[in-house]
Amino acid sequence: MKYTTKEAMIYSQRIAQLSKALWKAVERDWQTWIKPYDLNINEHHILWIAYHMKGATISDVAKFGVMHVSTAFNFSKKLEERGLLKFSKRDDDKRNTYVEVTEIGESLLDDMNDHYLDTKHAALDSSLPLKDIYGRFPEFMELMAVIRNIYGDDFMEIFEKGFRNLDQSLKEDEEVAYTEID
Amino acid sequence: MKYTTKEAMIYSQRIAQLSKALWKAVERDWQTWIKPYDLNINEHHILWIAYHMKGATISDVAKFGVMHVSTAFNFSKKLEERGLLKFSKRDDDKRNTYVEVTEIGESLLDDMNDHYLDTKHAALDSSLPLKDIYGRFPEFMELMAVIRNIYGDDFMEIFEKGFRNLDQSLKEDEEVAYTEID
Repeated sequence: MKYTTKEAMIYSQRIAQLSKALWKAVERDWQTWIKPYDLNINEHHILWIAYHMKGATISDVAKFGVMHVSTAFNFSKKLEERGLLKFSKRDDDKRNTYVEVTEIGESLLDDMNDHYLDTKHAALDSSLPLKDIYGRFPEFMELMAVIRNIYGDDFMEIFEKGFRNLDQSLKEDEEVAYTEID
Repeated sequence: MKYTTKEAMIYSQRIAQLSKALWKAVERDWQTWIKPYDLNINEHHILWIAYHMKGATISDVAKFGVMHVSTAFNFSKKLEERGLLKFSKRDDDKRNTYVEVTEIGESLLDDMNDHYLDTKHAALDSSLPLKDIYGRFPEFMELMAVIRNIYGDDFMEIFEKGFRNLDQSLKEDEEVAYTEID
């Protein structure tokens, strides 16, 4: 495989800056969405992962949430203190600590989903012209391939599993369906 | 333009998580690259923007660097104290503060570029299989379109200007060109 140092550097700095710009927009919208619920992004991400993986270990949470194990553990503890998450051990796996969303946690997540579109989501809004042209939201195939290469196949499997679960858990909303904008 | 609440939410949370995963990888590599130079990402980004825009105001730096104006100002001050950046006013524009990279700053940036490929860049490494298949690095057209819609045309113009400048400033490296890997 051949490439010039120069083209590699330009490509690499380009993806770095694109990624920063996208993340800063996403981060702001994510914070705005979850602010009324007194959660930070890590806490919400932990709840999301624990809920959609249906039996995640702290290290699963850390891996899929792209955070340090200690961060995953400490914020999980805070969520446990608030009664949103519970810790457990499994008889067949004494070494790992599992986290599970409590009923209170689940109803909090449902409530947050109900209000998802009450706040602005810049990346969503900015994708609508593409949806209009292509008839579907962008799939970011190249980006998905790059992320698969960075984090591995199991990361992508958990990623897709989370979204299949989200898809199922949102099923009953389908009838409130079509929203006219513009 | 029509979409279901459900598909919008799934798309939006998908791009949020992809963006977090990509940024965390990029951030780690960016930090590793610049660590020997005792700079943080914001400081390096400010130098990069000031150098490639050739006459940026603090608000240009904030906008293009996707940081608060106060962050751009405070870190610019620190760079000035280290002799890497200088502040100036222009006769034709008394209201804005311009920043310019000093000679020491320029040679620091050159030095950093010379050592760019000494450290790991996960997004670059993970893009090489795509380069191998398609003969060029990914262009992320959908992602670029989304970012253009979020930040506006002038953001993308400055973005491209920075990379055209980087392209020119790296010209003499072209002969050390082809690197064989694998």
